[in-house]
Amino acid sequence: KLAPGIGGFGGLFPLGDSYLVAGTDGVGTKLMLAFETGIHDTIGIDLVAMSVNDIVTSGAKPLFFLDCYSTGRLDVDVAEKVIKGIVDGCQQSDCALLGGETAEMSGMYKDGEYDLTGFAVGIVKKNAVIDGKNIVEGDVLIGLPSSGVHSNGFSLVRSVLARSGLSLNEQLPGNDVKSITLGEALLAPTIIYVKQVLDIVSKGGVKGIAHITGGGFTDNIPRVFPAGLGAVIYKDSWEVPPVFRWIQEVGKIEDAEMRRTFNMGIGMVLVVSPDASKRILEDGHGAFLIGEVTKGEGVTYL
Amino acid sequence: KLAPGIGGFGGLFPLGDSYLVAGTDGVGTKLMLAFETGIHDTIGIDLVAMSVNDIVTSGAKPLFFLDCYSTGRLDVDVAEKVIKGIVDGCQQSDCALLGGETAEMSGMYKDGEYDLTGFAVGIVKKNAVIDGKNIVEGDVLIGLPSSGVHSNGFSLVRSVLARSGLSLNEQLPGNDVKSITLGEALLAPTIIYVKQVLDIVSKGGVKGIAHITGGGFTDNIPRVFPAGLGAVIYKDSWEVPPVFRWIQEVGKIEDAEMRRTFNMGIGMVLVVSPDASKRILEDGHGAFLIGEVTKGEGVTYL
Repeated sequence: KLAPGIGGFGGLFPLGDSYLVAGTDGVGTKLMLAFETGIHDTIGIDLVAMSVNDIVTSGAKPLFFLDCYSTGRLDVDVAEKVIKGIVDGCQQSDCALLGGETAEMSGMYKDGEYDLTGFAVGIVKKNAVIDGKNIVEGDVLIGLPSSGVHSNGFSLVRSVLARSGLSLNEQLPGNDVKSITLGEALLAPTIIYVKQVLDIVSKGGVKGIAHITGGGFTDNIPRVFPAGLGAVIYKDSWEVPPVFRWIQEVGKIEDAEMRRTFNMGIGMVLVVSPDASKRILEDGHGAFLIGEVTKGEGVTYL
Repeated sequence: KLAPGIGGFGGLFPLGDSYLVAGTDGVGTKLMLAFETGIHDTIGIDLVAMSVNDIVTSGAKPLFFLDCYSTGRLDVDVAEKVIKGIVDGCQQSDCALLGGETAEMSGMYKDGEYDLTGFAVGIVKKNAVIDGKNIVEGDVLIGLPSSGVHSNGFSLVRSVLARSGLSLNEQLPGNDVKSITLGEALLAPTIIYVKQVLDIVSKGGVKGIAHITGGGFTDNIPRVFPAGLGAVIYKDSWEVPPVFRWIQEVGKIEDAEMRRTFNMGIGMVLVVSPDASKRILEDGHGAFLIGEVTKGEGVTYL
């Protein structure tokens, strides 16, 4: 008995005139950077973000969140910091922290390490669900800025770090705006788009939403399109943040691999009618017009 | 914004005339025995069981389940077996497998190892929720048999195994009924009580339900009682399965520690009116009358 929602960003379960929408995810090896830097108080924001950003792509309002914290031997100080981040993330997404589980599993995790899994459930009226099926050629792609790498691609980040010979305490090279260490830049918490996206959705014209996680634009944008449609991305329509330029340069990584691994500065993509796009851009959400829907398939970069 | 449900077995979220009830859990270091024996096709049943058995204690019908599978490098054969178990568990609890996530985290897990987290959501009408508040002195405790150790206490199990010098392929000592290896006995999947409990609940008279997990009777039964009430358990009212007798003997473990760690053969305890208890026992659920509610607090063994 598999539900029809599998394949989307969140799973949909019909309940009366609504769908419950559920998502689960962890934060991947971004955790390893938290272990290395000792910065544990924002990884919980990432954890909440990964699940709630998935379910908001259906237009669902998150109701509640649960976490599971697995470790070898519980370090209460570290756990408190992690949970503080989870509480922050729940506040940012206006959802209840409904419960959680702490599992001490001796022998499974190295000293000082832990794994996190998050689960979120939201709700959306059936007649308001966003599922991409009304997308047509000529619709517009709106990008919402990310805070950096968010919570995907950290295996590649870590190999680039090792190759760079830099420590996480050193300054991020090529960053003119303000002084920031590599550790701070890489651990910048994932943006929680819930309030912003629900506000935009409430004004109409949003037909599809893609959360840009592992797979980048290349894999995630096509997930919302009906068969026979693709996207053109204007690759110079926003500025790629310095952290990505540094990763690409040090790692000597091709454009195609960067775009299939990282969000490149855009963490959420809305597919909207041309009319709605004008209003959204005027409303000042920090949004960029980054492309349009075309015949064909997949994502092309112009 | 913390929900009131924290402290129960599942978290309760009000939605119209109902509560959504959510639970999350893993299977702890029972996983290590799956790694050692190579038996991966039932650990998914344990995973589903841990969450759905929690939420059914509120009288909630499970709606859907999601899993998160974390590993260093995905072994597709192993993952297929694990997912087969998850599908089995969802069928046994009549709920949809709504989604899941596979996280490859190089460097976090040893070769061949993985961690699992499960998440279930159910629903119950507000006027039918089971929360223990109507329990009174003289109510009866009904126990439903477990299949063995279920999914708690495996750190102690593993230290006993090491002390015994036996391999998981050897026969479980002191087991007259049928031939079974230690590995098979210890990995016996957790019973999913959903259909049985909901059937009993539908006939009325059930006031509180305790899922016997880590903490055993001693910690879990009092969680459902109003202040000022405790329980007497008739410790000879059911037969403790051979696997527990072996663990206690080899580990030289006190009764009190056994009862605070293991289910001792009873995986779910229903607190019911005396009238309901007669009907449940006659209905042939394999249930035992194992105790009664008394003034005082905590659990006493007679």
